[in-house]
Amino acid sequence: MGTPTDKTRFDGRAADELRPVTIETDFTEAPEASVLITMGKTRVLCSASVEDSVPRWMRDAEPAKGWVTAEYSMIPGATAPRFRRERRGAGGRTREIERLVGRSLRAVCDLEKLPGHTIWLDCDVLQADGGTRTAAITGAFVALALACGRLVERGAIAEMPIRQSLAAISCGVIGEQVLLDLPYEEDSKADVDMNVVMTGDGRFVEVQGTGEESTYSHAELLAMLELAGKGIAELSAAQQAALPQEPIYAKLFKKA
Amino acid sequence: MGTPTDKTRFDGRAADELRPVTIETDFTEAPEASVLITMGKTRVLCSASVEDSVPRWMRDAEPAKGWVTAEYSMIPGATAPRFRRERRGAGGRTREIERLVGRSLRAVCDLEKLPGHTIWLDCDVLQADGGTRTAAITGAFVALALACGRLVERGAIAEMPIRQSLAAISCGVIGEQVLLDLPYEEDSKADVDMNVVMTGDGRFVEVQGTGEESTYSHAELLAMLELAGKGIAELSAAQQAALPQEPIYAKLFKKA
Amino acid sequence: MGTPTDKTRFDGRAADELRPVTIETDFTEAPEASVLITMGKTRVLCSASVEDSVPRWMRDAEPAKGWVTAEYSMIPGATAPRFRRERRGAGGRTREIERLVGRSLRAVCDLEKLPGHTIWLDCDVLQADGGTRTAAITGAFVALALACGRLVERGAIAEMPIRQSLAAISCGVIGEQVLLDLPYEEDSKADVDMNVVMTGDGRFVEVQGTGEESTYSHAELLAMLELAGKGIAELSAAQQAALPQEPIYAKLFKKA
Amino acid sequence: MGTPTDKTRFDGRAADELRPVTIETDFTEAPEASVLITMGKTRVLCSASVEDSVPRWMRDAEPAKGWVTAEYSMIPGATAPRFRRERRGAGGRTREIERLVGRSLRAVCDLEKLPGHTIWLDCDVLQADGGTRTAAITGAFVALALACGRLVERGAIAEMPIRQSLAAISCGVIGEQVLLDLPYEEDSKADVDMNVVMTGDGRFVEVQGTGEESTYSHAELLAMLELAGKGIAELSAAQQAALPQEPIYAKLFKKA
Amino acid sequence: MGTPTDKTRFDGRAADELRPVTIETDFTEAPEASVLITMGKTRVLCSASVEDSVPRWMRDAEPAKGWVTAEYSMIPGATAPRFRRERRGAGGRTREIERLVGRSLRAVCDLEKLPGHTIWLDCDVLQADGGTRTAAITGAFVALALACGRLVERGAIAEMPIRQSLAAISCGVIGEQVLLDLPYEEDSKADVDMNVVMTGDGRFVEVQGTGEESTYSHAELLAMLELAGKGIAELSAAQQAALPQEPIYAKLFKKA
Amino acid sequence: MGTPTDKTRFDGRAADELRPVTIETDFTEAPEASVLITMGKTRVLCSASVEDSVPRWMRDAEPAKGWVTAEYSMIPGATAPRFRRERRGAGGRTREIERLVGRSLRAVCDLEKLPGHTIWLDCDVLQADGGTRTAAITGAFVALALACGRLVERGAIAEMPIRQSLAAISCGVIGEQVLLDLPYEEDSKADVDMNVVMTGDGRFVEVQGTGEESTYSHAELLAMLELAGKGIAELSAAQQAALPQEPIYAKLFKKA
Repeated sequence: MGTPTDKTRFDGRAADELRPVTIETDFTEAPEASVLITMGKTRVLCSASVEDSVPRWMRDAEPAKGWVTAEYSMIPGATAPRFRRERRGAGGRTREIERLVGRSLRAVCDLEKLPGHTIWLDCDVLQADGGTRTAAITGAFVALALACGRLVERGAIAEMPIRQSLAAISCGVIGEQVLLDLPYEEDSKADVDMNVVMTGDGRFVEVQGTGEESTYSHAELLAMLELAGKGIAELSAAQQAALPQEPIYAKLFKKA
Repeated sequence: MGTPTDKTRFDGRAADELRPVTIETDFTEAPEASVLITMGKTRVLCSASVEDSVPRWMRDAEPAKGWVTAEYSMIPGATAPRFRRERRGAGGRTREIERLVGRSLRAVCDLEKLPGHTIWLDCDVLQADGGTRTAAITGAFVALALACGRLVERGAIAEMPIRQSLAAISCGVIGEQVLLDLPYEEDSKADVDMNVVMTGDGRFVEVQGTGEESTYSHAELLAMLELAGKGIAELSAAQQAALPQEPIYAKLFKKA
Repeated sequence: MGTPTDKTRFDGRAADELRPVTIETDFTEAPEASVLITMGKTRVLCSASVEDSVPRWMRDAEPAKGWVTAEYSMIPGATAPRFRRERRGAGGRTREIERLVGRSLRAVCDLEKLPGHTIWLDCDVLQADGGTRTAAITGAFVALALACGRLVERGAIAEMPIRQSLAAISCGVIGEQVLLDLPYEEDSKADVDMNVVMTGDGRFVEVQGTGEESTYSHAELLAMLELAGKGIAELSAAQQAALPQEPIYAKLFKKA
Repeated sequence: MGTPTDKTRFDGRAADELRPVTIETDFTEAPEASVLITMGKTRVLCSASVEDSVPRWMRDAEPAKGWVTAEYSMIPGATAPRFRRERRGAGGRTREIERLVGRSLRAVCDLEKLPGHTIWLDCDVLQADGGTRTAAITGAFVALALACGRLVERGAIAEMPIRQSLAAISCGVIGEQVLLDLPYEEDSKADVDMNVVMTGDGRFVEVQGTGEESTYSHAELLAMLELAGKGIAELSAAQQAALPQEPIYAKLFKKA
Repeated sequence: MGTPTDKTRFDGRAADELRPVTIETDFTEAPEASVLITMGKTRVLCSASVEDSVPRWMRDAEPAKGWVTAEYSMIPGATAPRFRRERRGAGGRTREIERLVGRSLRAVCDLEKLPGHTIWLDCDVLQADGGTRTAAITGAFVALALACGRLVERGAIAEMPIRQSLAAISCGVIGEQVLLDLPYEEDSKADVDMNVVMTGDGRFVEVQGTGEESTYSHAELLAMLELAGKGIAELSAAQQAALPQEPIYAKLFKKA
Repeated sequence: MGTPTDKTRFDGRAADELRPVTIETDFTEAPEASVLITMGKTRVLCSASVEDSVPRWMRDAEPAKGWVTAEYSMIPGATAPRFRRERRGAGGRTREIERLVGRSLRAVCDLEKLPGHTIWLDCDVLQADGGTRTAAITGAFVALALACGRLVERGAIAEMPIRQSLAAISCGVIGEQVLLDLPYEEDSKADVDMNVVMTGDGRFVEVQGTGEESTYSHAELLAMLELAGKGIAELSAAQQAALPQEPIYAKLFKKA
């Protein structure tokens, strides 16, 4: 496996280096909170909309709970060639991503602290260059945190329903090299593609490692997990910097 | 009818005054051209994607032609409360807008100068505060012009397939007042709602005037058309300013 | 522009002349009222069915209201070649027409006088030769009036929920000529296509003027509106003649 | 079982008596042939549209063949209460009727005499009062014969692709009585409901006898078949009378 | 017509001979009852699942009732070539079969003895070699009886809601021969195809006889009904043998 | 973490013990190969159907290739309460599983050795008690191998297009215990749920570990992977035993 510090990637990055990340809050005003996250050329607009009701199946839960769910979509202009709008039902890939984003966010939530509310995290990809699902999770977490902070602030809920921060990153194997944060160019030729969702204090929420018409060894698996951990730590810092510098948010980023 | 210069509107504008307009080109890089148009709080991302084929029904046209078509969508976070994603087929309003945008753009195109190409204009509303369909037309025209200019530049087509510029604006009647460019706050209480699409040199492409559980007189119709003409002239200037200051684009804005 | 009295059209009509119009009431007996309207070869069966409930979203309205809505469809044999049945959801054109018909009828209704009832106006095109949407509106108004008259008669509602009569007609520009009531033959080569919905006393409900890969001048717009006004007056007379000669219907056709 | 000549039915008919039947050809002009069939209050518009191609799966058949198929639909105003339009796919009952109509017509066709053509029989029910599927078959046969006669006349095909005539009728059992041609009033309380499709010379094409939450005996089955035979003979005469009195049609009604 | 005892069929059977039948109960444990029925190579898994509610439209029935309904599906591997999964809505054939199975079962049920319960009969075809719909009915009856017996046993309902047993078989005409229980090989070349559903004591529930691009005589109809009666009697015996030898089931098979 | 050898599970198994596994080949005859795999109460019928064409997008591949794809479905009777048939499009969970099964199988295939053929692996769950997706993969591999072996045998392809064997198993964490092969009872209360797909010689194809409203540590991840490895080895042996004892299959199970 390649030495992580070699700057040998097509875009000049080291194997363990993230693309430039920016997290801009309140890009739009209509939802409770919105975040435009940019990782290289990948740009995802994550909106957190609050609805004052919960899905039918959890209405009679005791004690009362809230719900956090996600939708994911790419606008047609996000890719070249143009991506065809999914108007006859979301495709398999889209549904899989939506389920992943929603499940990941709920893993760090205490839904009993959000009674009677549903928060929709809409992740609309404005430009896609690899890693849209992980960018969506990282951005959606910030939008969710901001929306929850505001609900607390205006007294709609009593306390923060989030236990800790969450971010996600991709890594992969190309030939002999283990790489962090793959853009489309690399992703399309990777032998192994892994997405890792972790909390800010280093526990796993989701690990999905897929051989792309290929298989991988135990050693490669461990190497990818290590790179992912490094990337998540950096994303975690970027998330914290993008949020207001207030205790209610700071607590989410405390290490165990 | 009210005097157009009274600054009596809820947001301090005069009756014949547009909301602040900005037109930002190349907000994303994936499509051939993209434009983020902002009119007050309404923000629409218009992407022009070029496909090297034409719809089946026009493949054997003699002489060969191209095609220009549009899709329109609102992201869920564009409104509060959240707008439900149209995944089981676009609704009636969406289809009506898409047909309007595509038809309007084609009215100023010479499709024989775009042989073998389809240009998709995707209008994705990032924030909706009234006038999204007219903002979509105004922004999509700029994206279309820019995409065509680039096709000419790199030799994919021989000359500009656009005859002249195009923009659109809404106007309406509330009680006795005839108003230009209605945000949601005004739109929701208007008795009459009119959308006007005009060329830069003052000809009509589309006039749609609708009584909202109400009717209107010939005089009101004429007053609305006059306001629309004034607004279109200003939008036309903003479009020209947003495009590169080159002859290929300047020609589109010449008056008759 | 051509002189409206020249009999120069392919079917021998003058520019400002309607096709032969017949309005036959109670063509079928199942619905509350039904109307078979014929304009030249265009034939539309308009049924008014009454339902004793209102859409969910208006159930709690204060004061109680009723609802008027429309559906539009062409039977496959209405055209040659055969028109494909819209079984996988109504297409964009169909939805646009349905919205237009429903909105137009509601513009002359006082829905508070129809509390608790929904009237469905189903416009099924049996033969299509241009102008189906305007024939649908003109016929549906008669079916609606008749259904409402009968509801009053049998005491289901206290008074007529319609303020005044309504009719619709198309006009267009072909080359230099401004023409009234275009059959398919003319419609397919028109540069401008306009649909006008007006009340019997001459106010606008809807004006939709579309350049077909073309644009039009202010003077042409005014000329089309004038022809439309003449046509609407004649249709209005035909509607009144088709309804029972009773005061409850006569009132709808009084001039302002 | 009751004596067939007792005039004891709610509408004054004898047990073995058809409702008044009228068959009006060329009710509309757009399709190759159209027939408006009326049986009591049931009215079905049957259009025969000719398409100059065949379904993909039979394109390479040797020898070349044609195809005959049917669609069935009720307009919403056909019933009270209003029938909901089937826009999200035809329902089970509709599909079953369409399959029955198409299969029945094909049973008397020689598809090799219709090479390269598809004939669509669209059966649109304008008013429904029981027996719509059998009226559809009886009417569609006339439209099909007329369309084929015209294809022969103008030389599109060499000879008549129909071997003999076809008609259909319902019968049923209510309590002890075996009845012919049931309107809705009787149909809704029948214990057994049978639809019979027969050729003009008395052979079966389709027999469908259904116990409605009930069962029936061998004797009842035979009694129903006898009534059906009588009804079919009368319908056959009405079909022949409605068609042009020319040898090409007369041949279809010859007895074996 | 051939003599029923000639062993001249491609698989060595006599004209009036069934394929080998096996009925295995409780092939799976999850539903209230399940039956794997095998007729030659045709294998259908029939599950009876009980739900403690009834469809909305019958909730307020007086006296309270239950419901029995069926669904039918073929797994893709049931045929060669592979059968395409019906994921965009069940096709016409599927719906027709489901309606037939449900209607047939209800014809022998007394739904007032099943108050508040719905029994779903799911007929999943694991292998298809002709006669799947009749095998589904024969198997589903056994699953239904077993499920009802168990509901009575554990006191969920007071008495057996089934009046008598039910089975189904196909027969047909090939050339001059009238045959019982057609596998695919014969079915695909039959001129007439008949499905008969009868009670164990010899009354008809459903008779569906279809000329396949052909017609049939009265004599052929009677011959098919006779064969069917013989087959049903044998299936009835197999059903009784497959059920527990207890009075509650034995009563269903008593002759009139 | 618990000692793997404690027999403390609700069904008496040790933490590292599989449920009883049976793999029955040729349960049905219609497809090229079929396998009924049983793991405890979970039963999945896996059919391999061969089609002599490839998807459109790979038709012009150079060199020519084949395709392997999967579909997954549960019959309604597979669960109690009854599972609702997915007739309006497969749901998110179903699509995710289908993508997983297809991708996993392709990871051990050499598609260039299957030129011009598509193999469909249909995994129909007859009874579901946890672990259906992993049972589907394990069973589908056997069906795929058998189908490919037969294609080689009859000369349709030149050599085996599979590189090595493949199996899958679930594991999870409940409280402090790390467990192998979770039935529904355990799965529904697991904090972490992991599915592992591995080759017979111990390389990873897919690792998917999900915190269920929970997170997990690096140590727990390693413990789960170890259990999975043990389970896969046992499944691999069962697969080999179920296949014919011939060299063409034996080669797939050789250790690296």
